Amino acid sequence: MLNPADDKLAAALPKGVLRPMAPAYLEEPRGRYFGKAGLIAAPRTTDEVAAVVKACAEARVGIVARGGGTGLVGGQIMAKGPAPLILSLERMTALRGIWPEENVLIAEAGMTLQAVRDAAEAQGRLFPLSLASQGSAAIGGCLATNAGGVTALRYGTARALCLGIEAVLPDGSVVHDLKRLRKDNTGYDLRDLLIGAEGTLGIITAASLKLVVPPPNVGVAMLEVPDPSAALSLLALAEAHMAGGVTAFELIGGQGLAFLAETLPEIRRPLPDAAWSVLIEVGLPAGLSPDEALERFLTDAMERGLLSDGMIAQSGQQADGFWHLREHIPEANRRIGAVASHDISLPLSEIAGFINDAGKALAARSDVRVNCFGHLGDGNLHYNIFPAKGRSRTEYDSQRTALSELVHEMVVARGGSFSAEHGVGRLKVGELERWGDPARISAMRAIKSALDPWGIMNPGAVLSQARGRDAGAGGPDKP
Amino acid sequence: MLNPADDKLAAALPKGVLRPMAPAYLEEPRGRYFGKAGLIAAPRTTDEVAAVVKACAEARVGIVARGGGTGLVGGQIMAKGPAPLILSLERMTALRGIWPEENVLIAEAGMTLQAVRDAAEAQGRLFPLSLASQGSAAIGGCLATNAGGVTALRYGTARALCLGIEAVLPDGSVVHDLKRLRKDNTGYDLRDLLIGAEGTLGIITAASLKLVVPPPNVGVAMLEVPDPSAALSLLALAEAHMAGGVTAFELIGGQGLAFLAETLPEIRRPLPDAAWSVLIEVGLPAGLSPDEALERFLTDAMERGLLSDGMIAQSGQQADGFWHLREHIPEANRRIGAVASHDISLPLSEIAGFINDAGKALAARSDVRVNCFGHLGDGNLHYNIFPAKGRSRTEYDSQRTALSELVHEMVVARGGSFSAEHGVGRLKVGELERWGDPARISAMRAIKSALDPWGIMNPGAVLSQARGRDAGAGGPDKP
Repeated sequence: MLNPADDKLAAALPKGVLRPMAPAYLEEPRGRYFGKAGLIAAPRTTDEVAAVVKACAEARVGIVARGGGTGLVGGQIMAKGPAPLILSLERMTALRGIWPEENVLIAEAGMTLQAVRDAAEAQGRLFPLSLASQGSAAIGGCLATNAGGVTALRYGTARALCLGIEAVLPDGSVVHDLKRLRKDNTGYDLRDLLIGAEGTLGIITAASLKLVVPPPNVGVAMLEVPDPSAALSLLALAEAHMAGGVTAFELIGGQGLAFLAETLPEIRRPLPDAAWSVLIEVGLPAGLSPDEALERFLTDAMERGLLSDGMIAQSGQQADGFWHLREHIPEANRRIGAVASHDISLPLSEIAGFINDAGKALAARSDVRVNCFGHLGDGNLHYNIFPAKGRSRTEYDSQRTALSELVHEMVVARGGSFSAEHGVGRLKVGELERWGDPARISAMRAIKSALDPWGIMNPGAVLSQARGRDAGAGGPDKP
Repeated sequence: MLNPADDKLAAALPKGVLRPMAPAYLEEPRGRYFGKAGLIAAPRTTDEVAAVVKACAEARVGIVARGGGTGLVGGQIMAKGPAPLILSLERMTALRGIWPEENVLIAEAGMTLQAVRDAAEAQGRLFPLSLASQGSAAIGGCLATNAGGVTALRYGTARALCLGIEAVLPDGSVVHDLKRLRKDNTGYDLRDLLIGAEGTLGIITAASLKLVVPPPNVGVAMLEVPDPSAALSLLALAEAHMAGGVTAFELIGGQGLAFLAETLPEIRRPLPDAAWSVLIEVGLPAGLSPDEALERFLTDAMERGLLSDGMIAQSGQQADGFWHLREHIPEANRRIGAVASHDISLPLSEIAGFINDAGKALAARSDVRVNCFGHLGDGNLHYNIFPAKGRSRTEYDSQRTALSELVHEMVVARGGSFSAEHGVGRLKVGELERWGDPARISAMRAIKSALDPWGIMNPGAVLSQARGRDAGAGGPDKP
């Protein structure tokens, strides 16, 4: 796959950083994209990353940074345009340091989220970010995409858990900002600009991360609610009881339970017929038993008619079982095979109305099933559309775009977002252009041009490429 | 004070937005700076702000945005260079909306922090940002400077409490991004870029803010600790007990108590002779009495030798009394008259060593008193230097710079920051140039040039002005 230009680039790279091509570098989890690459580089140090970036800038070759490759919007895969260099962080997996007494850890970008969590746990601390893909997702990718997950309600998204970064900018310069500080008001927030920029403004090589002391008392319950509106009232009531102690508040639609029953019958479903249920986890201070706190909360909720049934986990094993159910909904979805998936967020008070109206609008348009579930506490739903029973997803190929547009239009009309936690990647560039605020997009383009004038950083992700500035496709002369 | 250029600008501004000049617009709290201004504009709407910015961009006149004017680093005052237009947000004080069920409020930038807090409280909610100056500090200024304060330990700085912004960019375009969403990964984080940029990249005109349900149980205690190292161990122990329930953890040095006794003897000092004390506030779930939780924590701390004395507030009035003491330390400082003040942060494990070493180094250098106090939970100290008893601050004029440099050098050597929560403004531009990471500063300059090519936004704040690009001082031809 090497062409003469790549040969020249290869010669300019630090020795030992090139990797043999392998299909895994060109795939993404949902099989939507298959990429291409001129070269695969796997630098071992930040200096080597900087050398690779400098060489690519010189040669005007695009760079796609790659962590665990678990992103769901094609940010890690470039299928169009000149073949890029894929810069894999897989060799930068060092724990640079951990300061349990400060609740801080510094990790290199290629460390998996699970490894970061394990390193914290070994010192009696918790790194609270938690995703289904944490075994392979790299922490650098989690930051580049501002990953969310099940604990964002309490601890925030990846952004909120990062104190500082080290990053290589598009000119090959290195930003050294791995501070272990909770407060530092010394200039523009470059950290938060690179977080969520999906590798289009620079490559995060290491990060200083916030840890917490794990709550002494943890309780988990599975609750049946009459409808999404009651689930939201239940959330407000939980917050009033728990003083910030609600760690997770996950909505589970009845369709998800049915998919589990159909595809993964071995998974226990404690409330098998619930049209809507909620998985709640609380983390509480010493001196307050989770059983007691949850009992008090549930009694209050019952009296208010917010609850039809509920089970408080009586052991760690039972709590794990509840989580096991929740975490296998995406796998059940994969087995059924979605027509279209949507990672949306809404203002909390718009959620019940949206679920109702969108369900009706879809039913009027097509013969589909909807599995609506997700991080209700954050207003973040995974609103996925499936074929009617007995039909195949390919039968819906011609409708897919229109159905997604219908969903996204209803979300945006209610002040919501078409990408709550997965990012823009290459999948949603059009949506951002269509629904994004024009002044904001214009400012984004100005920042992109200022930091990456040759457009070499993840070309075509987040923002469509400006004409004549595509990396590797000509572009203006060097300055 | 109008000159012919100003007359022309005035004619271009929306009718009714000009204000008469008044000395208050040209002052800052510590009397360090006295500014100048060509015009004072007080727009009533975002469109009027945009019109003012467009007119200034056209005329290449600098704009200094002004909220409550309470900033401590001269960001709101321009004393050098061509006279700017001062854009006061004082007429933009509307509460645009409040959604208690979503824990969201949208405020215009000129609303005071106190008014925001009151609006939240009227709906049974809490806006947790809390500063001594909240009666006059405007929320727009709090965001522009990423204000911190006493509750940042639990709720974060202003940045963490903002969901979205509306802002006018240097070209007069308006970013509409007042979303009521907890998660929204659709492109670059322009919000966090403008937050903390101190009015140099745009003017925040309104913000969507995060509220919380107030904790059902609140407890406050004043504790005497043997030394700062014990105070840090006490903080870790409190976190282990309280599961994120520690709202504030303030360090008070004995010198502060002595200054209070000297200048404000009417203020009650419950532990009058403590060399080091800590004010702790906890917010706890329903079902856990603060007395019980604090008792359990204090017993544990006593057994570990972290505590020599302590008092749990037995009433709201007593709790207010403890806070009253803490909040009057800055006033006592003003009455004594500081030689030099430092708003620093350090990695938590460096704090005790810093306090020890810096105290010794200063004593070796000069005859001064140090009042060290602040937000220990955030690693944020106000490290202020005062004349020896009986001497006047003017006697130290020749030493001031060297003493500050000594402090900042010791802070930076330990991985700390020379501006934890006050920002850079005009006071610390030199410090940022000296200690800031070069690649980061270079990226900041690139972003500034990209968004504000004429350098009209708060010229000379945060970044020193590039030659030949000063607003009002010529600059390149129009594009």
